[in-house]
Amino acid sequence: MSKGIISKSVIRRLPRYYRFLGELEEGGYVRISSRELAEKMGLTASQIRQDFNCFGEFGQQGYGYNVRELRSQIGNILGLEKKNPMVLIGAGNLGRAIAAHINFADRGFELVGIFDVNEEIIGKNVGNITVQSIDEIDKFCTENKPAAAILCIPKNSAEKVSDKLISCGVRAFWNFTHYDIRFSHPDVIVENVHLGDSLTILSYCLNSVCEK
Amino acid sequence: MSKGIISKSVIRRLPRYYRFLGELEEGGYVRISSRELAEKMGLTASQIRQDFNCFGEFGQQGYGYNVRELRSQIGNILGLEKKNPMVLIGAGNLGRAIAAHINFADRGFELVGIFDVNEEIIGKNVGNITVQSIDEIDKFCTENKPAAAILCIPKNSAEKVSDKLISCGVRAFWNFTHYDIRFSHPDVIVENVHLGDSLTILSYCLNSVCEK
Repeated sequence: MSKGIISKSVIRRLPRYYRFLGELEEGGYVRISSRELAEKMGLTASQIRQDFNCFGEFGQQGYGYNVRELRSQIGNILGLEKKNPMVLIGAGNLGRAIAAHINFADRGFELVGIFDVNEEIIGKNVGNITVQSIDEIDKFCTENKPAAAILCIPKNSAEKVSDKLISCGVRAFWNFTHYDIRFSHPDVIVENVHLGDSLTILSYCLNSVCEK
Repeated sequence: MSKGIISKSVIRRLPRYYRFLGELEEGGYVRISSRELAEKMGLTASQIRQDFNCFGEFGQQGYGYNVRELRSQIGNILGLEKKNPMVLIGAGNLGRAIAAHINFADRGFELVGIFDVNEEIIGKNVGNITVQSIDEIDKFCTENKPAAAILCIPKNSAEKVSDKLISCGVRAFWNFTHYDIRFSHPDVIVENVHLGDSLTILSYCLNSVCEK
């Protein structure tokens, strides 16, 4: 269905469409026009039509979109029907919160292992997964072939850990550290979450005139 | 120093410059050229010069930038010397992790209060702050005048809570919910962190050809 490489800015809007259409479906909507969807989402109808056109023909002129069908097609584009195995490295406060807070299955992943270096955390359960020593990661990867990893570790250990994971076949990182994985591994897929940077932006906007 | 409204895309790069210059300073760098900084950060020298020019004249042709001075100026632009009072609403897994993980003082904020609706959490300490009932928020805001709030609560209570906070004088939100605060309050400052959306993007890139 895809017409080649879709720009990242379009991709970044898809999860929001997906969420929004889920709410509409729960609210009993069967069809919706691009104009109505645009109003509800604070976008323009032409932006929505443009976005959806990147992937193929979703709607029918004059009939609007079938909410459930559109949502399911966007879910397919996002790869959410797959459950890529994923490991969490770092079971400190943030790692444990991510493990507890995120619905991995709804996002195309399955959390299959959690690793740490801290002897006090190793052996404890986080949800229904027992935290293992990072020393076990080679063996674990050979057996479970995780495609992706979440990094919730200090920056100074991130280089060593990511090198190791990549050598074990991990191809994608959800990176909460400030270490720039792509600098030495340009072909790896990385989604950075820089929470501190995000708060810094809020500080800027609170103290200066800021684009909304 | 600012030349009017700076575009959001430039602003979004400033925290990374700030972090990077901090590391250079720690590593003993006194001066750095835009070319060398660009190489280290995976940017182009002209991009860096353009970004810094939005704010005024930082470097000196042929001499490069004074690392400490540049960092301090960017910190000032970001408003990091201020400590805006901030409250956390929602002391579940994610809220507690944010409270423990983030260095608020380095980001221009001071965490002054934590609130929840859960009787089992109210009265407990998170760091050195005692979680209060959300019923106390009016009184607390009158006394402490928080400028900003972190929302780590379910989407279905986000509308009521954000309306209340705005009526109490809160002007900026670090929003971890999927509720769109700006839809009904267009003048409020909002920095959204949609962790689930970010993971969904990773899923897409793992399953499709994706712009790096």
